[in-house]
Amino acid sequence: VGTMAAMGPLPAMGALPPLPTLGVPGVPELKPLTRYEAMRLGPGWSHSCHAMLYAPNPGMLFGRIPLRYAVLMQMRFDGLLGFPGGFVDRRYWSLEDGLNRVLGLGLGCVRLTEADYLCSHLTEGPHRVVAHFYARQLTLEELHTIEISAVHSRDHGMEVMGMVRVPLYTQKDRMGGLPNFLANSFVGTAKFQLLFALKILNMVPEEKLAEAVAATQRPKKAAIDQAGGAA
Amino acid sequence: VGTMAAMGPLPAMGALPPLPTLGVPGVPELKPLTRYEAMRLGPGWSHSCHAMLYAPNPGMLFGRIPLRYAVLMQMRFDGLLGFPGGFVDRRYWSLEDGLNRVLGLGLGCVRLTEADYLCSHLTEGPHRVVAHFYARQLTLEELHTIEISAVHSRDHGMEVMGMVRVPLYTQKDRMGGLPNFLANSFVGTAKFQLLFALKILNMVPEEKLAEAVAATQRPKKAAIDQAGGAA
Repeated sequence: VGTMAAMGPLPAMGALPPLPTLGVPGVPELKPLTRYEAMRLGPGWSHSCHAMLYAPNPGMLFGRIPLRYAVLMQMRFDGLLGFPGGFVDRRYWSLEDGLNRVLGLGLGCVRLTEADYLCSHLTEGPHRVVAHFYARQLTLEELHTIEISAVHSRDHGMEVMGMVRVPLYTQKDRMGGLPNFLANSFVGTAKFQLLFALKILNMVPEEKLAEAVAATQRPKKAAIDQAGGAA
Repeated sequence: VGTMAAMGPLPAMGALPPLPTLGVPGVPELKPLTRYEAMRLGPGWSHSCHAMLYAPNPGMLFGRIPLRYAVLMQMRFDGLLGFPGGFVDRRYWSLEDGLNRVLGLGLGCVRLTEADYLCSHLTEGPHRVVAHFYARQLTLEELHTIEISAVHSRDHGMEVMGMVRVPLYTQKDRMGGLPNFLANSFVGTAKFQLLFALKILNMVPEEKLAEAVAATQRPKKAAIDQAGGAA
């Protein structure tokens, strides 16, 4: 992880490399800004920090579909899917201290650092919010421990209605898995950040992301029989 | 629970009371059939059984929004929300034995009986499937135990990507909570069954259900800032 770290020492101001864009048709591009730019925003801006926790997953679904990675998101109190995190009050906290503080309320046992920083984007909408995003690779056992601690946390059933893993594969019907998942309802920048991280961290090839998003934009099939293949 | 039981002894054939309909505008009505009719369907029909596990919940979200009930659904391997359950092979199992068998794979510690039976409906689509639906009221502690056992089960991260609770309230913005949740992607009859059970069991007033469904059919707002009120 650690895109910032992976880039090596920062070049001199004015020579910053262009920030990568999402480039997935059908998903509105958000304006990227550097951490340096974000830190210079005035007090009229709010800062949100969210984290994608993920782990390589050697499992095979139905013995034949590689799961590849387990990626954590959560169903929120408002019925939307999002990443763990929240707003950070920059008057009192560094981005990472603030992120760990809000993660601590729900997850407990993981501490993120600046090395886990991935990107910052300006959000759309009436409020001046800059969304910072982090990603941390864990082992599958560590990730499972977080899922277990989440269901025991005092937030469970309140702000967080449950943790879910994101399916990264696409089944033969071309909807099952990531396409259907992307057709759910996401809060604010969460869907953009998910796609961005999957692309930047090479977890799903860019053309597969584009196909999955495109599949969600086709008119829906009349009805799919419940439990297809499930039991 | 136990709508069947609550109706008392079955009336003579031909004098069956009309089965209730969902009656929520914008949600296609499925054809109800009695358990008696369903049991007489030929071998060309498949039978699926799913269960809504729920518990009265005295909690208040943000200290002011009554949670009312905790209702369990799951994020499935195919990226869709559904109830625990699956297909039952009627050659070998009664509906309830089959249901407990498929529940046992994921949930372990709850056994449903005929007293928990709620309704049967014909599904849409090319396959001849009749969907049987059950509902069991638990204590909040029992429900929490099931959530904990689910995250420890061997299905976790495979067929089931996580359990979530359904928000039954609607926040002030008229989208947060149940409306947003209903805008997610559901497998087959699951959304119909959720609304049907919430209505029949008087867990959400019918007009609130209709409002929540109607809210999901309005054109979407441009973008909602991430984490509104969350942290």
